[in-house]
Amino acid sequence: MSTLLNETHHPALRSWLASAQTPGGDFPIQNLPFAVFRRQGSDEAFRGGVALGDQIVDLAALARTGLVTGEAAAALQAGAQDRLNALMALGPTAWSALRLALSRLLREGAAGADTVATCLVPQAQAEFTVPARIGDYTDFYTSVHHATNIGKQFRPDNPLLPNYKWVPIGYHGRASSIGVSGQRFHRPVGQTLPPGATEPVFGPCRRLDIELELGVFLGQGNELGEPIAMDDAEQHVFGLCLLNDWSARDIQAWEYQPLGPFLSKNFATTISPWIVTLDALAPYRTGFERPAGDPQPLAYLDSAANRQEGAFDIQLDVGLQTPAMRSAGLAPASICRTSYRHAYWTLAQMVTHHTVNGCNLQPGDLLGSGTLSGPTLDQAGALIELTQGGKQPVTLPQGEQRVYLEDGDSVVLRGWCEKAGAARIGFGACEGSILPARTL
Amino acid sequence: MSTLLNETHHPALRSWLASAQTPGGDFPIQNLPFAVFRRQGSDEAFRGGVALGDQIVDLAALARTGLVTGEAAAALQAGAQDRLNALMALGPTAWSALRLALSRLLREGAAGADTVATCLVPQAQAEFTVPARIGDYTDFYTSVHHATNIGKQFRPDNPLLPNYKWVPIGYHGRASSIGVSGQRFHRPVGQTLPPGATEPVFGPCRRLDIELELGVFLGQGNELGEPIAMDDAEQHVFGLCLLNDWSARDIQAWEYQPLGPFLSKNFATTISPWIVTLDALAPYRTGFERPAGDPQPLAYLDSAANRQEGAFDIQLDVGLQTPAMRSAGLAPASICRTSYRHAYWTLAQMVTHHTVNGCNLQPGDLLGSGTLSGPTLDQAGALIELTQGGKQPVTLPQGEQRVYLEDGDSVVLRGWCEKAGAARIGFGACEGSILPARTL
Repeated sequence: MSTLLNETHHPALRSWLASAQTPGGDFPIQNLPFAVFRRQGSDEAFRGGVALGDQIVDLAALARTGLVTGEAAAALQAGAQDRLNALMALGPTAWSALRLALSRLLREGAAGADTVATCLVPQAQAEFTVPARIGDYTDFYTSVHHATNIGKQFRPDNPLLPNYKWVPIGYHGRASSIGVSGQRFHRPVGQTLPPGATEPVFGPCRRLDIELELGVFLGQGNELGEPIAMDDAEQHVFGLCLLNDWSARDIQAWEYQPLGPFLSKNFATTISPWIVTLDALAPYRTGFERPAGDPQPLAYLDSAANRQEGAFDIQLDVGLQTPAMRSAGLAPASICRTSYRHAYWTLAQMVTHHTVNGCNLQPGDLLGSGTLSGPTLDQAGALIELTQGGKQPVTLPQGEQRVYLEDGDSVVLRGWCEKAGAARIGFGACEGSILPARTL
Repeated sequence: MSTLLNETHHPALRSWLASAQTPGGDFPIQNLPFAVFRRQGSDEAFRGGVALGDQIVDLAALARTGLVTGEAAAALQAGAQDRLNALMALGPTAWSALRLALSRLLREGAAGADTVATCLVPQAQAEFTVPARIGDYTDFYTSVHHATNIGKQFRPDNPLLPNYKWVPIGYHGRASSIGVSGQRFHRPVGQTLPPGATEPVFGPCRRLDIELELGVFLGQGNELGEPIAMDDAEQHVFGLCLLNDWSARDIQAWEYQPLGPFLSKNFATTISPWIVTLDALAPYRTGFERPAGDPQPLAYLDSAANRQEGAFDIQLDVGLQTPAMRSAGLAPASICRTSYRHAYWTLAQMVTHHTVNGCNLQPGDLLGSGTLSGPTLDQAGALIELTQGGKQPVTLPQGEQRVYLEDGDSVVLRGWCEKAGAARIGFGACEGSILPARTL
């Protein structure tokens, strides 16, 4: 599972593109995340692109230059298509070859830099789309802190169920309603059971929430009946994005038994356009030890590499911007700050558990991490936790308060990695906002 | 919603193909269901076909004859592709036009019959595939008898949850592991909690079950944020197939809280190759009245047409064949006989509920009805019900018994409609069988 650091990670690497060196920027030459884009308002074909500074390297244009050869050229051709499934299907050797080729073309002093410069499109002029045809979307539940916090709301007497520390709990989600950052959707309507009532009412959701998650795009799949072992699991992961699993808590509370959330989740899910590869994240690997007294994972979910470096220290932030804040020119206010390192189950454990029964994964499938709440209250990745079930409003600039989302609110997820001795890399933004409920 | 009977339904219609008149046959000229097929063992392209007697009308070959013109020709071209999504997307006017054109070409005395006869492929020489690219698969829970029976196993003190009679409960399933009749899969392995234990064990499923369902292929989709009203819902349904939602009950019992079934279901789902259209099923519509004392559906789930003819009287049968029966030349033994008319929620209610929050459906999406158990024990569509949780084995010919499925067992679902004054039509078979668990 280990991904060795190589020349593409060196913190001293600089690009001939000045904006790649922007302090605190998400997209230095050490990152090189993938998206699918075209120029805004154009009828151009969507194609793959790689972020560098404030620009996008247009992979279709770069392929036409002939500057990339060998295994990287095949990966580049696959990445030039209108979705990244073909690139994802090629596997980690091809991904790494393309990363190395791009790194060498984009660094200071590179031969061909003038030609590559003609392949740049400003990010400010681009529109993005969901970067893969997502065959199936599965959402996990990997934060024990979230499971405990939300369990207290739904089952006060029984917050953390007995299976949690044994089973990487997951369930199937809806692929069709996944949209890319900038998604706007109507407040969902549906059935809810008012407090104390015995019959439901029908109307707009009144407890509209977020869930701060990471999305995991799968690379190579597996055949039906052929599980993926822990030591192979990360070879099937193309990369990570930000994911907001919008949730209608009142609809969820009424519908979720016995088969799980359905209409409370499938009206919209927003992901960031950029997929940060495991290669790029390699400097930010970390270990995860089970807390004292917790059971060790069953053998099929355990490996030495997973214990030592199966987790990732990815910083995460949730920003909330109300219409009043927007009018006043105020940036989104941070309501949560946490890290992916607190997750109870790793990427490899999600992949291996998902396939242990023979279930087949396919290139471009998406896994959600589940809400990534950390151990303290201000690290909670959902309003239902931050407000303790609506009892403690979040206070925003100008004195506004929120218990749940109101019409016109915008939520921005951000993620990044930084530490001494490594280049800071980031995920860009994952933004979505709420339109009023349709008229009934 | 009403589909008027027309000339294609007339029970006296006869085809120039003798086998279409086989007594008790599934595929008379009044049926005309769709599948995707090619000749067994060939490298031919898969393409759409329509069943007639023991033959398949090859839609790609028929399109080349030029015999079909007008709106039906566009539908025929769409149906000639390697999946039926394009045909499904055209909508009910196009589907009906194609049905009428086929009916007229295939009936006794039709001009062009000699040419159409060159487009036939024997079903016995065909292999089938999943007839659409299934973007999302949703499984419902529309039998109150199943919900009550299985609720007794999982929650003895609380079998039917308070939401059941208000909410058409559904959840997302796995599209990638859906296979067509003939599917063989390894017994799943996973975590289960032995009776009385506090820690799970890992190993092959010991409570492997079936679920007798109908599958619903969607036609035209809806845009995100635009719900489908009850009166429009059936216009979005292309047709129905048989569906076996194989279920690992011991894995399910341990994993399903709080987010629903996952690995207990997603290792395999088997559907019949043939999709019977709502046009073909029109003579078998029936009403559904809520039992005395039950709440009426909320307004968004109610319509006069739905009450009067929103249900379908489709006979269903589950056959089980053990390896010993197969060796002895014995046919599958019937272990369940029921009808879809007992379902508590209709097709239209499934579609409307699924979209009421704005969730978008797409052509080729698949809905499962949920296990279609009827009101009596011998009408139960799953072994967990038929055996009362494993306590009352099912007895088979030669004295064999089953509580759950054993390796080598084969299960065959069948469905058909018949009544006086209408032609009998059927769904063909939906067969699947169990391979031993892979070696751990």
